[in-house]
Amino acid sequence: MNEVIETILNHRSIRHFEDKPLTAEQIKTIVSCAQAAATSSFIQAYSIIGVKDKEKKKKLAALAGNQEYVANNGHFFVFCADLYRHTLIGEQEQMEVIPTLESTEKFMVALIDAALAAQNGAIAAESMGLGICYIGGLRNHLEEVKAILKTPERVIPLFGLAVGYPSKITEKKPRLPLEHIYHEEEYEQNQEVYLDQLQNYDEIISHYYYERTNGKRQDRWSEQMANLLSKQTRMYMKEFVQKNKLNLR
Amino acid sequence: MNEVIETILNHRSIRHFEDKPLTAEQIKTIVSCAQAAATSSFIQAYSIIGVKDKEKKKKLAALAGNQEYVANNGHFFVFCADLYRHTLIGEQEQMEVIPTLESTEKFMVALIDAALAAQNGAIAAESMGLGICYIGGLRNHLEEVKAILKTPERVIPLFGLAVGYPSKITEKKPRLPLEHIYHEEEYEQNQEVYLDQLQNYDEIISHYYYERTNGKRQDRWSEQMANLLSKQTRMYMKEFVQKNKLNLR
Repeated sequence: MNEVIETILNHRSIRHFEDKPLTAEQIKTIVSCAQAAATSSFIQAYSIIGVKDKEKKKKLAALAGNQEYVANNGHFFVFCADLYRHTLIGEQEQMEVIPTLESTEKFMVALIDAALAAQNGAIAAESMGLGICYIGGLRNHLEEVKAILKTPERVIPLFGLAVGYPSKITEKKPRLPLEHIYHEEEYEQNQEVYLDQLQNYDEIISHYYYERTNGKRQDRWSEQMANLLSKQTRMYMKEFVQKNKLNLR
Repeated sequence: MNEVIETILNHRSIRHFEDKPLTAEQIKTIVSCAQAAATSSFIQAYSIIGVKDKEKKKKLAALAGNQEYVANNGHFFVFCADLYRHTLIGEQEQMEVIPTLESTEKFMVALIDAALAAQNGAIAAESMGLGICYIGGLRNHLEEVKAILKTPERVIPLFGLAVGYPSKITEKKPRLPLEHIYHEEEYEQNQEVYLDQLQNYDEIISHYYYERTNGKRQDRWSEQMANLLSKQTRMYMKEFVQKNKLNLR
């Protein structure tokens, strides 16, 4: 196993960081690595906003559901889907680009571009001994997040990435069985096999919690997911995204 | 610079592969690395389909706009947004999960999950001396791609990842200036600065092509993007995604 694969497999979300800021050099390395990711047709449809200001970080932490590690970390990055610069380019080149920019296809491209870049940044950070945590909680209140970060139209903050020196290491949770995530030639057609895989996984997860909580917790993954998904959260998203002139047609 | 950062910065898309399949071990490593990526609320909303069958790969290559490296590579992965298993879980747990699964928010989660996983897989492959190329062209004809891969409802094939032993190394294209992608504290508010950055980049890209084509080509990035975006491609996507019961509300 090489150093790269070791770094990748060793990932866990870190939620406690030392009070030590990243250096300008570390930030530059993380961003450069993010930029090295593949991008659909060279479109580069994302932006990254780094937040250092303590008051601003506290506000973002509150908006993200009082996750204190949004405020306390070495650096806080926000990854955004960004088709604003392409809007300006359309004006400058006097070409009709708006219908394309408003398509669901280009919304998907911007999301994928931003996520590929973010994961490169995350791996780079981890390779330097830093810990990371993705913050989807920013999507709880995007109107407010947008106001804080002053993002223009056709820019959607997607998630944060808290980076810093870990002060408490968490455990890795077992993932879905490889054969459930990975299919060969075609998607699994046998529903019995498919459901069996989920059931086996449920037992693994239940056992995982049981062991780590002295039996206090033993919820299955299916149970967790059903609970999570039965709560209708962030249902404003469609309207919000469309108000920002993306995913419209 | 450590080995991880070196691997990340050394990325380039590879479009010519040796006729040598990946081993089962290599495939397993790539998928395990993909699975090690962060996932929103542990939801694991993606699947990966590996394609080895030569006929199937040829069909996918034709659908992706006759990109021959979709057919000729060491292994072809298709990364899918996947909320199908969560649909089944809702039924089994007898919880009302459908409104959430049909939300734009969860569509975004599935896309981001799939892309984070894919980039881990890509980096892992590159660290083993393999080359990779993302294939967005699969989205040209998703109805046909879905039929070939037999994906159920709420599964959207997003992109392919061709992996293999490189037989021809391509050059890296310069990315947007770091200060244009990366903002601090807030998005760049000075449009003059912002447009200047784009103009500088245009010159860099124009020069890049000029040098590599003995002056035959010298298009600016803005020009490329305006041309690309003025063509309304994949405009069926919104309807297609909604027909697959995602991004509906």
